[in-house]
Amino acid sequence: MSQISRETQTMPSYRLASRLTKNENSLVTIGDTCVGGEEFVVIAGPCSVETDHQLLGTAWEVKSAGAQCLRGGAFKPRSSPYSFQGLADVGLTMLARAREFTGLPFVTEVMDTNDVDLVESYADMLQVGTRNAQNFALLKRLGKSQKPVLLKRGLMNTIDEMLSSAEYILSGGNENVILCERGIRTFETSTRNTLDLSAVLTIKERCHLPVIVDPSHASGKASYVAPLAKAAMAVGADGLMIEVHCDPASAWCDGEESLDPQQFTALMRELHAMAPHFNRKISLAVPQAKLD
Amino acid sequence: MSQISRETQTMPSYRLASRLTKNENSLVTIGDTCVGGEEFVVIAGPCSVETDHQLLGTAWEVKSAGAQCLRGGAFKPRSSPYSFQGLADVGLTMLARAREFTGLPFVTEVMDTNDVDLVESYADMLQVGTRNAQNFALLKRLGKSQKPVLLKRGLMNTIDEMLSSAEYILSGGNENVILCERGIRTFETSTRNTLDLSAVLTIKERCHLPVIVDPSHASGKASYVAPLAKAAMAVGADGLMIEVHCDPASAWCDGEESLDPQQFTALMRELHAMAPHFNRKISLAVPQAKLD
Amino acid sequence: MSQISRETQTMPSYRLASRLTKNENSLVTIGDTCVGGEEFVVIAGPCSVETDHQLLGTAWEVKSAGAQCLRGGAFKPRSSPYSFQGLADVGLTMLARAREFTGLPFVTEVMDTNDVDLVESYADMLQVGTRNAQNFALLKRLGKSQKPVLLKRGLMNTIDEMLSSAEYILSGGNENVILCERGIRTFETSTRNTLDLSAVLTIKERCHLPVIVDPSHASGKASYVAPLAKAAMAVGADGLMIEVHCDPASAWCDGEESLDPQQFTALMRELHAMAPHFNRKISLAVPQAKLD
Amino acid sequence: MSQISRETQTMPSYRLASRLTKNENSLVTIGDTCVGGEEFVVIAGPCSVETDHQLLGTAWEVKSAGAQCLRGGAFKPRSSPYSFQGLADVGLTMLARAREFTGLPFVTEVMDTNDVDLVESYADMLQVGTRNAQNFALLKRLGKSQKPVLLKRGLMNTIDEMLSSAEYILSGGNENVILCERGIRTFETSTRNTLDLSAVLTIKERCHLPVIVDPSHASGKASYVAPLAKAAMAVGADGLMIEVHCDPASAWCDGEESLDPQQFTALMRELHAMAPHFNRKISLAVPQAKLD
Repeated sequence: MSQISRETQTMPSYRLASRLTKNENSLVTIGDTCVGGEEFVVIAGPCSVETDHQLLGTAWEVKSAGAQCLRGGAFKPRSSPYSFQGLADVGLTMLARAREFTGLPFVTEVMDTNDVDLVESYADMLQVGTRNAQNFALLKRLGKSQKPVLLKRGLMNTIDEMLSSAEYILSGGNENVILCERGIRTFETSTRNTLDLSAVLTIKERCHLPVIVDPSHASGKASYVAPLAKAAMAVGADGLMIEVHCDPASAWCDGEESLDPQQFTALMRELHAMAPHFNRKISLAVPQAKLD
Repeated sequence: MSQISRETQTMPSYRLASRLTKNENSLVTIGDTCVGGEEFVVIAGPCSVETDHQLLGTAWEVKSAGAQCLRGGAFKPRSSPYSFQGLADVGLTMLARAREFTGLPFVTEVMDTNDVDLVESYADMLQVGTRNAQNFALLKRLGKSQKPVLLKRGLMNTIDEMLSSAEYILSGGNENVILCERGIRTFETSTRNTLDLSAVLTIKERCHLPVIVDPSHASGKASYVAPLAKAAMAVGADGLMIEVHCDPASAWCDGEESLDPQQFTALMRELHAMAPHFNRKISLAVPQAKLD
Repeated sequence: MSQISRETQTMPSYRLASRLTKNENSLVTIGDTCVGGEEFVVIAGPCSVETDHQLLGTAWEVKSAGAQCLRGGAFKPRSSPYSFQGLADVGLTMLARAREFTGLPFVTEVMDTNDVDLVESYADMLQVGTRNAQNFALLKRLGKSQKPVLLKRGLMNTIDEMLSSAEYILSGGNENVILCERGIRTFETSTRNTLDLSAVLTIKERCHLPVIVDPSHASGKASYVAPLAKAAMAVGADGLMIEVHCDPASAWCDGEESLDPQQFTALMRELHAMAPHFNRKISLAVPQAKLD
Repeated sequence: MSQISRETQTMPSYRLASRLTKNENSLVTIGDTCVGGEEFVVIAGPCSVETDHQLLGTAWEVKSAGAQCLRGGAFKPRSSPYSFQGLADVGLTMLARAREFTGLPFVTEVMDTNDVDLVESYADMLQVGTRNAQNFALLKRLGKSQKPVLLKRGLMNTIDEMLSSAEYILSGGNENVILCERGIRTFETSTRNTLDLSAVLTIKERCHLPVIVDPSHASGKASYVAPLAKAAMAVGADGLMIEVHCDPASAWCDGEESLDPQQFTALMRELHAMAPHFNRKISLAVPQAKLD
């Protein structure tokens, strides 16, 4: 066994995730949406699921603006035990209702192996948050899931550590992994974290999986989201994850980084207009409500 | 509920862990050993449990040198899925055997809520590793444990985040938490991480829980362990966690940072000699074998 | 004097650089080029001045591609005394010759107060490098210069420290300062530094001075320069500083991050095409050579 | 020349500073004090020179307590141009007067090549501050100085960069360089910087020059200075640089990190008592005043 151990030390820490193993870009499907191809995919929604009213209102707005996937937290990782921890299964039910009404698939975070069965029975994609980016037990469990996984970069993980975390999922048998750059921790405190857009390039160089960018959590400021989102498209990301709330001022968490529906709609139009310059397209939805 | 949320934002993120709530130092007991008082407590042992031979040999050596507690990993958090992942329940059985033979209580890492029942049925103290320092589901579960918890600082965590993680355990009802500074991630790559000894002072200022230091994982170099261990005593830590292997050159992981028994014994003698200058004592054991 | 000192501690560390003092964007002119307005300004050229052949060849190429300003180092800040330190005054003469032939103004670094007289007698703009970003003696001297100053962000300077460094120049009487984000030092080692594009937004929020981005030094990789350059335009930068070498493989320093003329020309065309989406324009030159 | 350049890239960035070149520890003399040998050298004094009264009072106190060298800033590097910039030549005169009265040699910072002639005509040792740690023009000039140099680690510098900066001085002909670890910039904001005590070990491993530690600037908190100072001795540093002010509450800068004379005296006694455990000695002075 000691010999085995010595051998593994000379092996690369990831193999299935590597472009050396698979050169062409991988495509991952969420509902009817394909991530990693020409389509520039935008996932949008509130930080946390609060009420049916809030979630449905926001879901309808982001769909109208062209988002292809809804996001919303039911299990919330919070530094303090005294912060709002999410609505758990009640939140998942609300998300399922929002999907039923809008047709949008949804992604939501799962924080513990014990919750995976529950969350995957509802969600279209399971998210691993930045603080669980090296929760290896959770990653192994998700390797056995039938649902795609959105893996956020750990606050202080190198690209190679992130790809090794993806490898835990891939090596378990689940090939459907989307990576998400969401800012790293640095000495600079003007923004919540420092968005590392060159990470998109490094990941693309080393790995065939789709990569999206979350400018909302990276910056922590609503006014930074649109310019960083456009920069993410320009640098070559496959999509975005953006916090949108129908009424940011009353959000239970992270309101200061959430776009309101008007801001989000304006951003989607700008992305739609610039997309052809980057060999991308965004299929802006024509919502039913506006046709009637 | 929105009102509740707004209120909680003005609350401190930790309260039970704070010196404002409890001014006197807390004492935490592992087996017969009390941490946080005059005794300077040294926890020692191999990075991972490998064989009965390795574990018993190492356990006997560290006991002879004066360690009060054994460490050894049965569940190993590894960046890559292809690295040795630990012997799991087999490793726990070996640790229990080592305790039986040496009388040393042991601490071992638990990485997943699903494993807590198993690990706490064996171990004297449960360790939360640096990559799980904000695995809130795990922290909540440990709040319900009857066993003390050794909480390592996350690679990327500020002191206040670390104390908030401790608060998850305390607020669940488990008051027996020991904090461990083990190096943070910085731009410097000469050492594996950067040991932040002033963190001991900040924690002591804000929090009543015992604090120990792990110079082995912080530096990643055996030759740095003794001087950093002495510095940790000098700065005011309540103890140490040190990797010792009966044969570092053949260790399955982290051999380059492990002390051999001679080095560890020499360090314990130096710590014993300098302890009175820092109002500490180390009760060097007189092992049975040497008396006979 | 103790009273004065106490007063100054409540004063902001910068005032003239602040938007609170001057709300409209400042424009800085280099030669005939105005930075900070609609024109997206590209400064290009080799890391260091090597030979007349290299410099003139490169200068002509970058002008043909549409750059409005030439860059080239005559005084090179190198970590080691054994690395090439630059051609000093000989290099300045070459830069002046390149200006004469191409009509391009040039910017070059000055590293010491003693060299400012010399460098400003040649250059159109003086650059303060990242390692001198808090060389306050140098900043004060540049406050007395008649030439504009390109101030690079220190590798480990916060935005507020950068603006305070600019304040040293402004408060000396020189209003012509352009700021340059060029990557900060973080734990990630895949790229030489981490380009912090949200810094452009923070600077613009707090300060009226023009901001450009240097993707070459930030990433250290030629293949990253074009996508990061486009992201910089997308996020709202006023221009770029890009390393171009007529033959990167033979460059005396930083060849691995230099674009060759073909790559640079392709990038300029892409920037030209995308500029209108960001309310910018790039006046692509029609070089004399191609007209004849 | 291109060939020369390619050769230099394979050379180490420092050679004279390396243990490979000179294995035994170097000794550097300030006045009558030898740094780098058995004596544990403490340099103490105010952050900045303010008045004759303040400086003489403080100098007398630190001498009485056992300091072997006085420190005090006449040229102050301040982030903002509106902060107190130091008394310049007037401050140097005061420092010389304090030396005359107490017999203590003094070290003071020089920030610009233009000031080196002046400062070296007064000071016993010249300090390079953290923000000038890669001011290569200044380092080259100090290579020609007859006075020893105290080189502080740059906030952002790796150990190898620090040793390369030392190499600039050594390769200019000045062998008398003392290195100083004073904290690096990290994500943690509880302390002003993060004191990296393992840097002492890395420097000692790679380099033969003496190394001292500055716990005052590293932590920014007076209450942290004594425990960190003791940890610095425990880890193997050759000495300390400590801020002491006869009346910290009225200090013009950095009062919150300055010890008062009583605190400093208590610390010196503790260091004196613990020194033998670390094969060090501190020759506590018997001041003239107390003998009379």
